Amino acid sequence: MKTLFKNAKILTMEDNQPIFEGSLLVDGNKIAYLGKELPKGSFDQVIDCEGNVLMPGFKNAHAHSAMTFTRSIADDLELHDWLYSCIFPMEAKLEAEDQYILSKVAILEYLTSGITACFDMYYNPQEMARAAIDMGFRTVLLGTVTRYRESVEEMKKAYKEINGQNPLVTYVLGFHAEYTATEEILIELAKAAHELKSPIFTHNSETPAEVEGCKQRHNGLTPTEYMEKLGLFDYGGGGFHCVAVSDHDLEIFKKRNLSVITCPGSNSKLASGIAPVEKILKSGINVAIGTDGPGSNNALDFFWEMRLVAVLQKLLNHDPKSMEALSVLKAATVGGAKAMNLMEADVLAVGKLADIIMIDLKRPNMQPLNNIEKNIVYSGAKDNIKMTMVNGKILYLNGEFYLDEPIEAIYQKAQEITDRLKNK
Amino acid sequence: MKTLFKNAKILTMEDNQPIFEGSLLVDGNKIAYLGKELPKGSFDQVIDCEGNVLMPGFKNAHAHSAMTFTRSIADDLELHDWLYSCIFPMEAKLEAEDQYILSKVAILEYLTSGITACFDMYYNPQEMARAAIDMGFRTVLLGTVTRYRESVEEMKKAYKEINGQNPLVTYVLGFHAEYTATEEILIELAKAAHELKSPIFTHNSETPAEVEGCKQRHNGLTPTEYMEKLGLFDYGGGGFHCVAVSDHDLEIFKKRNLSVITCPGSNSKLASGIAPVEKILKSGINVAIGTDGPGSNNALDFFWEMRLVAVLQKLLNHDPKSMEALSVLKAATVGGAKAMNLMEADVLAVGKLADIIMIDLKRPNMQPLNNIEKNIVYSGAKDNIKMTMVNGKILYLNGEFYLDEPIEAIYQKAQEITDRLKNK
Repeated sequence: MKTLFKNAKILTMEDNQPIFEGSLLVDGNKIAYLGKELPKGSFDQVIDCEGNVLMPGFKNAHAHSAMTFTRSIADDLELHDWLYSCIFPMEAKLEAEDQYILSKVAILEYLTSGITACFDMYYNPQEMARAAIDMGFRTVLLGTVTRYRESVEEMKKAYKEINGQNPLVTYVLGFHAEYTATEEILIELAKAAHELKSPIFTHNSETPAEVEGCKQRHNGLTPTEYMEKLGLFDYGGGGFHCVAVSDHDLEIFKKRNLSVITCPGSNSKLASGIAPVEKILKSGINVAIGTDGPGSNNALDFFWEMRLVAVLQKLLNHDPKSMEALSVLKAATVGGAKAMNLMEADVLAVGKLADIIMIDLKRPNMQPLNNIEKNIVYSGAKDNIKMTMVNGKILYLNGEFYLDEPIEAIYQKAQEITDRLKNK
Repeated sequence: MKTLFKNAKILTMEDNQPIFEGSLLVDGNKIAYLGKELPKGSFDQVIDCEGNVLMPGFKNAHAHSAMTFTRSIADDLELHDWLYSCIFPMEAKLEAEDQYILSKVAILEYLTSGITACFDMYYNPQEMARAAIDMGFRTVLLGTVTRYRESVEEMKKAYKEINGQNPLVTYVLGFHAEYTATEEILIELAKAAHELKSPIFTHNSETPAEVEGCKQRHNGLTPTEYMEKLGLFDYGGGGFHCVAVSDHDLEIFKKRNLSVITCPGSNSKLASGIAPVEKILKSGINVAIGTDGPGSNNALDFFWEMRLVAVLQKLLNHDPKSMEALSVLKAATVGGAKAMNLMEADVLAVGKLADIIMIDLKRPNMQPLNNIEKNIVYSGAKDNIKMTMVNGKILYLNGEFYLDEPIEAIYQKAQEITDRLKNK
């Protein structure tokens, strides 16, 4: 299958590569050509971009996709109340097939927002993997080891099962957080990382209280220091949230080549604080962006996240020059790809995976055209996502989904599941 | 012209009125019926809402619509640099017809975001009035008196010209800010307010530096205290931004029945700070929401503003329970209508103006349906605006504009104007 995009403005997201006008050819699941000329040959479909922008899809580097059932059931609550009175009792009733359906709702939302891959952390990762494969969506799955549910053995089993199963899904090691693990588990996890030579990801320093608790439990060590001491990061990895990180933590992040995945929508809605993203970037650490789950955010909307990353840094640093637009766009694409080990889908270039979005410049929020990159970050919205292509297939175009299953069927099943989970 | 909406979920925004399923009839420019039954009779058009939500349109209570030419030309800059090196030189070349065209671009964007009225402050208000009337959009225009350009006499002339000209436009007294006026001008303004028994609006306490400057100029008085002393608020009015307001300022706001118009998108992007909106609301002061102009925000998107109002209060107050969703939705509709003296368009009720939007619940960010009001505030986006009706006319439906002029023609003219203004 060869798809030619012509009359496009191409934003490759490669360093120092300004937007240029040209065409792009997708052959199978990869980019076969991109340049100012029209390639010769025959094509299965030709899409006239009418001057709109092609760019790499956004990488949602922190997600709990199956948690769509929690959207708007427990807002405006304390984190602890939210977890213990609302989320945990519902999760206890969640079955594997439920997760498969509920994850599909999240994938639909990702497509409307130009997200072409997510880094998903939840129990039973096989269900999200199944949803992703069935819908043609790219997903990196992640271990969710805790002292309550998933064991290190189960994680290792999932690692073997999911990696190699389908080109759309990969799996990396992960655990929920220091405060839901035990030292024994973390030592086992470090062993697994060494055995598989795999990076490890976890929720890290989401709130000042989490850091304080860790210091009390572990002789004054922050979560990052404690995990480093146990050898968890010897093969890299990263932390989700990183709101309350110290300078020494950032030195460890830098030394171990770890990524910071910032989740400003979730951190602000739960009043957790603002991660020092500008400082982290200036330390030379890779930054990616995540939506977190629909229970705490509640949107899975990268325009919301991108603009929020920018404006929260400006507020935090009392500096309107802080976190300029292009840095945000890099974190949303290349930074995410790096954190998720999706370097085959980071930029638009020949040989890269065809995970491509089209930004509609013919919407009023993009007019006039003074600076397209700044327009995308500072006034972009979901109505600018004209197309989302994953792995060479158009899954979303002009507001319509191109999937095997009608969306109404997914919605109906998700509603039935949610209603059942809410019943006490 | 009679338009019947059937199979709707109706969110009237009246106090203690939960969403109900029913129908709504628009006759001319007003709501003629709303209730659980289908009204009898013949109708010019019948719209099946298919279970989607009808609610009052959002009121954008602070705007500089004609400034679309400034979008993305000067981001990531200090406020002072932004104004003096970029905005003022371009504004100096702006002609009346330019403003007419550039305002239309903003109105298009308002329609995509469910905004049915704006409170617009800019020079030559007749141009925005003309754009609003020609497009069928409701606008409250506002004086922009400064010591540099608009005089009090010109403001009074505009007051007489615009009020009564067309039901879609009204005009109230206003001036740019304390720091761009002189005491002489402010005394003249107070006289005009008394003469016309009119409220007065202005930029007020946008930054801590503005408040400090005023204190230095005026014997330690804050802008609010100083303006109160001069009798500017004897007939009410309000302040835009109100980031750096004191408790005593809020007492004056309360006593004079003034509105606070918060602009979180602009205040955060310019690193001005966070207005204490929760505290202001709890003081019994009316709160409305504004986008500010496209040069400083840069989006004219009420989903962005609403969610930002909520999450910034949660961050500011270190409390996830702060500023719950329904308060935000009230500020965006009823609060805006009150500030703009559009009480005929505040809620959905028989006899009210038909300024109505339809929220598409069939988009994935609204699924599942646990709490529709929270969905709108916390996961809503512009792709949920299925319809925007102003004054009984559908101006935007299913992503298409229903206007006399093709949008491409507006874009092209706006781009030509912008390019001319940028030329040095």
